[in-house]
Amino acid sequence: MKRFSVIIAALASVILLAACGSSNSSTSSSKSSKTNDTQLTGQSDGSYYQSVIKNGHYLTSKSRGVNVQQNGNQLNLKSFEAGLMNISKKQFSTGKYVFQEGQYVSTDTAENWLGRKTKSNPEGLNPAGKNTKVPLYLQQMDEQDFLTQDGNSLKMSGMTIGLGINSVYYYQKQAYGATYQMNLSDAEIKAQGKKMANEVLARLRKTKALKNIPIVIALYKQAPDDSLVGGNFFAYSVNNGSSTSVSNWTAVNEKNYVFPVASGQKGPSNNSDENDFSNFKTQIQNFFPNLSGVTAQAQYMNGSLTGMNVNITTQFYSQTEIISFTQYLQSTASKYLPTGVPIDITVSSTTGVQSFLSRSTNAKNFTFHIFNSY
Amino acid sequence: MKRFSVIIAALASVILLAACGSSNSSTSSSKSSKTNDTQLTGQSDGSYYQSVIKNGHYLTSKSRGVNVQQNGNQLNLKSFEAGLMNISKKQFSTGKYVFQEGQYVSTDTAENWLGRKTKSNPEGLNPAGKNTKVPLYLQQMDEQDFLTQDGNSLKMSGMTIGLGINSVYYYQKQAYGATYQMNLSDAEIKAQGKKMANEVLARLRKTKALKNIPIVIALYKQAPDDSLVGGNFFAYSVNNGSSTSVSNWTAVNEKNYVFPVASGQKGPSNNSDENDFSNFKTQIQNFFPNLSGVTAQAQYMNGSLTGMNVNITTQFYSQTEIISFTQYLQSTASKYLPTGVPIDITVSSTTGVQSFLSRSTNAKNFTFHIFNSY
Repeated sequence: MKRFSVIIAALASVILLAACGSSNSSTSSSKSSKTNDTQLTGQSDGSYYQSVIKNGHYLTSKSRGVNVQQNGNQLNLKSFEAGLMNISKKQFSTGKYVFQEGQYVSTDTAENWLGRKTKSNPEGLNPAGKNTKVPLYLQQMDEQDFLTQDGNSLKMSGMTIGLGINSVYYYQKQAYGATYQMNLSDAEIKAQGKKMANEVLARLRKTKALKNIPIVIALYKQAPDDSLVGGNFFAYSVNNGSSTSVSNWTAVNEKNYVFPVASGQKGPSNNSDENDFSNFKTQIQNFFPNLSGVTAQAQYMNGSLTGMNVNITTQFYSQTEIISFTQYLQSTASKYLPTGVPIDITVSSTTGVQSFLSRSTNAKNFTFHIFNSY
Repeated sequence: MKRFSVIIAALASVILLAACGSSNSSTSSSKSSKTNDTQLTGQSDGSYYQSVIKNGHYLTSKSRGVNVQQNGNQLNLKSFEAGLMNISKKQFSTGKYVFQEGQYVSTDTAENWLGRKTKSNPEGLNPAGKNTKVPLYLQQMDEQDFLTQDGNSLKMSGMTIGLGINSVYYYQKQAYGATYQMNLSDAEIKAQGKKMANEVLARLRKTKALKNIPIVIALYKQAPDDSLVGGNFFAYSVNNGSSTSVSNWTAVNEKNYVFPVASGQKGPSNNSDENDFSNFKTQIQNFFPNLSGVTAQAQYMNGSLTGMNVNITTQFYSQTEIISFTQYLQSTASKYLPTGVPIDITVSSTTGVQSFLSRSTNAKNFTFHIFNSY
């Protein structure tokens, strides 16, 4: 009986708090709105968009999950989605626009468009032909929607579409046979991407809500399946009003590298960042007898370093070793790694992430966090 | 030829920077010292100790790795090491003392002490007897050394020893047979721990460097192998001067729980924190269609909540979903979770940690970090 009343009390407080939660969140941010059953996530930081919650659930993408199946290298996925959002931010400011996961390209549509053009799939954006002769160019696509407040409701006001084009086409001559690969030239990637962008734009304009809004289309070159860093965006177009074909492309000079640069691979033209990393690596690899790997992803824009993610993996650390190592990393990273760009350092073992350090663009020092367990 | 000169230049700069690195680090902190080839890690924060680097290498524990093999539940390891350091901090201030991984109990000694007392192992701290009848009590031990500056060198000035005592004894009746378990009472755990502490103290005092320093001995009750949270410390003693047996024990009323509390398991006596967590969980589980798990570790001291680690696992998130979810967590956690205690929230998927949020004891808001990939 006592237990029963506790449960009722708990349930009552859930209902109470849930009710109070939703009303709170509609007032918690000056920008948030509540229309019918639509709420916004709240904006914690001007560098991120608010996004849409409907009836208490996050409004997930209509084609959710399609890209996951499509990508042999999961690094292409994260890099593509995050990079696309950076391109969106140039056109749709985080202060004015609310982000919504793509609601216009459905799972079926995405699967058809990503397929080869055949009699049964006339919408396929990849060229007709034999799998062993004609490469599949388009590997993934992503839609991002941008809404604005219109009185008491949200209005569709902009869209960004990303197209991920293969740099290597992987195919099999027979089912379960060996995998062959065909390298695709930058000229081919560019030409195919631009052709598909025109087709996609024309198709999207047929939907009423998309007839007169700016649609940004961005082209991404997929990294090979064995790459330790994702691919890169190489061009985007902003298509205003009712334009049904792309008239102007803006080139994006983005490049990602892995440090240390593997022999035979091309590194950045200016190797001072790589030297800095290499000195840092030498310094910290002495620290422990069994530090098993230190690598970094480095991103360049127009030839200049714009960010670095350092990954340190080890076989085993005790908690006291993690604490000492993290403090040592903090001073060593400040001393050796390039300044003026955001840098993340993650320390992981087989049991997961142990600690991480981060320094934002203009910060002087690395902050750190050591993951604890009771 | 060109390549060769680049390599030489790179090597030269490594040597140059390495040299400059070690001299820098000896002056980077007002407290750091350099004696022969001893450096300190530098102290980033008064809540952590500086520790010792010898000849560029971290001075690892003499019995490094023994505890890892000993523990069926890795959570006991992290919780034991971190909790022991918290007990050390009460006696040895982080401002005055430098931490050093245990240098006096070697791997062989640790293995002998953790073993059963037999003819061939007279030093075994676990009682003689048949494995199926007489339980093994002592499961892990840890040594932490504390040094002070003495002119130009570091002097051993204090030690903390932790003894981890089983709450459940696991054994097999025949090799490769079924595993049986024997529950050990709190009275047994306490009596055995205190008896072993006396023996350990007497043995340590035989080493010259340990004859006249304060030695803290702390007793830890191991969590069962299937626990989702580590065990807890229940007593410690500070043994000054040359005392060779423990005269005074201080009780520690520390308890760890997992939320939601499993049916049949005992939760904390005051269930308001658990209700808060449950409301938080309900609120965020609605957010995504496939949020697969939300649990928390909660630590209590003298019946009051002192900290919480929330773990959220999911099958798959896109990067844009992670960003939105993290922003939503930030506002939801502030609204529902208990205030005035440190709280960490980690969001992971099968590919690793995706984001994490943290609020320190006195902070008003959660800060967050979203893990990125180029």
